[in-house]
Amino acid sequence: MKPFFNVQTVEQVRAYAQAVQRLASEEVDLGRALGRSLAALLKAPHDLPGFDRATMDGYAVRGRDTFGASETEPGYLRLIGEVLMGQTPPFQVGPGQCARIGTGGMLPDGADAVVMVEHTRNLDDGSVEIAKSVAPGTHVLGAADDAAAGQVLLPEGHCLRPQDLGLLAGLGLSRVAVVRRPRVGIISTGDEVVPVESQPGPGQVRDMNTHTLSAQILQAGGAPRAMGLVKDDEAALSEMVARSLKENDLTLLSGGSSVGMRDFTAQVFMSFPGAEMLVHGVAVAPGKPFIWVQSGEAHLIGLPGQVASCMVAFNILVEPIMESMLGRQALAFTRFARLQARLMRNLPSAQGREDYIRVRVGSNGDGVWQAEPVFGKSGLIRTLTQGHGLVRIPLEKEGLDQDSQVEVLLFPRS
Amino acid sequence: MKPFFNVQTVEQVRAYAQAVQRLASEEVDLGRALGRSLAALLKAPHDLPGFDRATMDGYAVRGRDTFGASETEPGYLRLIGEVLMGQTPPFQVGPGQCARIGTGGMLPDGADAVVMVEHTRNLDDGSVEIAKSVAPGTHVLGAADDAAAGQVLLPEGHCLRPQDLGLLAGLGLSRVAVVRRPRVGIISTGDEVVPVESQPGPGQVRDMNTHTLSAQILQAGGAPRAMGLVKDDEAALSEMVARSLKENDLTLLSGGSSVGMRDFTAQVFMSFPGAEMLVHGVAVAPGKPFIWVQSGEAHLIGLPGQVASCMVAFNILVEPIMESMLGRQALAFTRFARLQARLMRNLPSAQGREDYIRVRVGSNGDGVWQAEPVFGKSGLIRTLTQGHGLVRIPLEKEGLDQDSQVEVLLFPRS
Repeated sequence: MKPFFNVQTVEQVRAYAQAVQRLASEEVDLGRALGRSLAALLKAPHDLPGFDRATMDGYAVRGRDTFGASETEPGYLRLIGEVLMGQTPPFQVGPGQCARIGTGGMLPDGADAVVMVEHTRNLDDGSVEIAKSVAPGTHVLGAADDAAAGQVLLPEGHCLRPQDLGLLAGLGLSRVAVVRRPRVGIISTGDEVVPVESQPGPGQVRDMNTHTLSAQILQAGGAPRAMGLVKDDEAALSEMVARSLKENDLTLLSGGSSVGMRDFTAQVFMSFPGAEMLVHGVAVAPGKPFIWVQSGEAHLIGLPGQVASCMVAFNILVEPIMESMLGRQALAFTRFARLQARLMRNLPSAQGREDYIRVRVGSNGDGVWQAEPVFGKSGLIRTLTQGHGLVRIPLEKEGLDQDSQVEVLLFPRS
Repeated sequence: MKPFFNVQTVEQVRAYAQAVQRLASEEVDLGRALGRSLAALLKAPHDLPGFDRATMDGYAVRGRDTFGASETEPGYLRLIGEVLMGQTPPFQVGPGQCARIGTGGMLPDGADAVVMVEHTRNLDDGSVEIAKSVAPGTHVLGAADDAAAGQVLLPEGHCLRPQDLGLLAGLGLSRVAVVRRPRVGIISTGDEVVPVESQPGPGQVRDMNTHTLSAQILQAGGAPRAMGLVKDDEAALSEMVARSLKENDLTLLSGGSSVGMRDFTAQVFMSFPGAEMLVHGVAVAPGKPFIWVQSGEAHLIGLPGQVASCMVAFNILVEPIMESMLGRQALAFTRFARLQARLMRNLPSAQGREDYIRVRVGSNGDGVWQAEPVFGKSGLIRTLTQGHGLVRIPLEKEGLDQDSQVEVLLFPRS
């Protein structure tokens, strides 16, 4: 253990987070793959759609046969048959010929374009009047337009969205290898904290952090496991952390609100084999008393006990660790949805510290979003329940001016 | 049935959507309430935290006793005891007295502020040197600061986020009444469509829409139910729609790619008792062939069969219906996270139609996001898997200029 530790920046913590190893993979059904991370890059096993398809109802033609056709000077093609859906047409379209086709139908050999039915007239003599010229490829999906066999379609670590599942289905991949969910143990501490089901006695409060963190872990793609509440007692804490360390990839310890507790959280973390302290204190508000110790493949995190600090510290400092475990190569806009807004108050801030201010977003109906800071101590959960997101004041700034344009990092589902 | 129907605007469809009735409520455990909609407004059953709490380690004092105290001219208070965590202090702080207290401890009667331990010195004679003046309320959470008994905390229809679950836990509400999930039946049609597990024959393609829609329904807070694939056959379709109508709140029929199918979707929908056609065609691209029929409390929706059109039509036109079923009173930024970006191409558009253009977002690392349109036919799912979101071109505009600032409506989890 290094004897002395300097407070680090959020950027330094994120650099450590990026070095965290990805977890192993597992196979899941397509119906359970939403939001999971691809364990390997996705290559197309075959062309998609696999054959040339019409995208309109009309007539399959050879494009060159329609050149010059117009409303005033239509062309005429011989109708040789109809394409049945889901079948290979048993004929070929030769020069001067055409075939009736519906949207999604397979283009017959020889044809390379479709004339929309609106621009045609079916004549009694077995021919079709064509009132529009179409270039080859018009109203046709090429056999490899969606994907060509062997083409890389999605990168490793990609978070699967509805359309990605549609693509996998189109390729016949009904099971998919994804990164397993990080198991995240949650420990709440404090002599004054009781479980939600209990009636608090005088001077006691119910545990809020376990519930907020569980839901945050779910949203971040992890599997939360409430390990339990522990009193301000070093032996009890040590035992519970040891159990969590064995069972989970990541352990979050929130609280230690008493003086003694804070002092021995780091000691307990460092007592495990191969423990290495990566971070002890971050230049960020809220979130300063953040502790990160690595022991083997597992990670132990100390979070502030104050409810608002705990939640924001998770957003800013823990989620990047989980993203690395999930192998995500997220673009910066993926973790927080962003909203441009006008700041409705001056926000002072200390230089040399990143500040995250909780704000409520509203509007006068004029299309301009307004960000109103929710002031209140970080022990108050209402600063979060009344808020829609966070405004960041960078390290080097001394605050933000009223009426300036700010970017709100929205809480998920706000 | 009205004999003739005009194409309607997206705004008109949304107005109908807002009139859709909210579904009934059900009770769930807190651990399963993430993302669910509150069935009734939340009132605080009692004060939270319920007693005055210290937010710092230090000494509980009567603020007025510290007035004028400073580093150079400290004051002195008599130490009368220590507040134990989770207990009512068995003493009262009188004039000239103080008591040791830890963060989260209950303020003793008589005390109204806390002096941080850093600004004090414990002297041998049983007194404490106070080097800082504190106003009443300093470093104290008031008994009703988070919530006062009876106060409205969250509105009906509110979508529960992690911090909201923390608040419910703090109030002892381990079960919560939420709006039940809309049951949404999905029917895919087309003679050429086969299930994901099948090996498509010549001219056949695998069903993508069922998988994309299922995941979209999940994200929107619904319970998807794949009803199955149906061939282009009016009797078979009618039977499947009848079953879905009975079992689900909402039925989504995607496709009907053949000419005949499109023609009889509306007929089948209108054949059910009390059927009323609300919408038949919308001035939007993609999404134009949108059909909405109400039958009793249930809703039947016809979506375009083209994969990209189907997904975007769900985002733009179906989600608002589900939001009403869930009783959500969402602010406009909640359904789509937004990102400001520079448009990298000219985008032409027809006046009198709302256009939603799929874009990919990237950056040169200069802090400016760039929105690059993903061109491609709406039958291609890659236009969605390569994209991060949509740029909207309003009804009255004829396009957007390259380099103009646009708002990207991000696909969830992009």
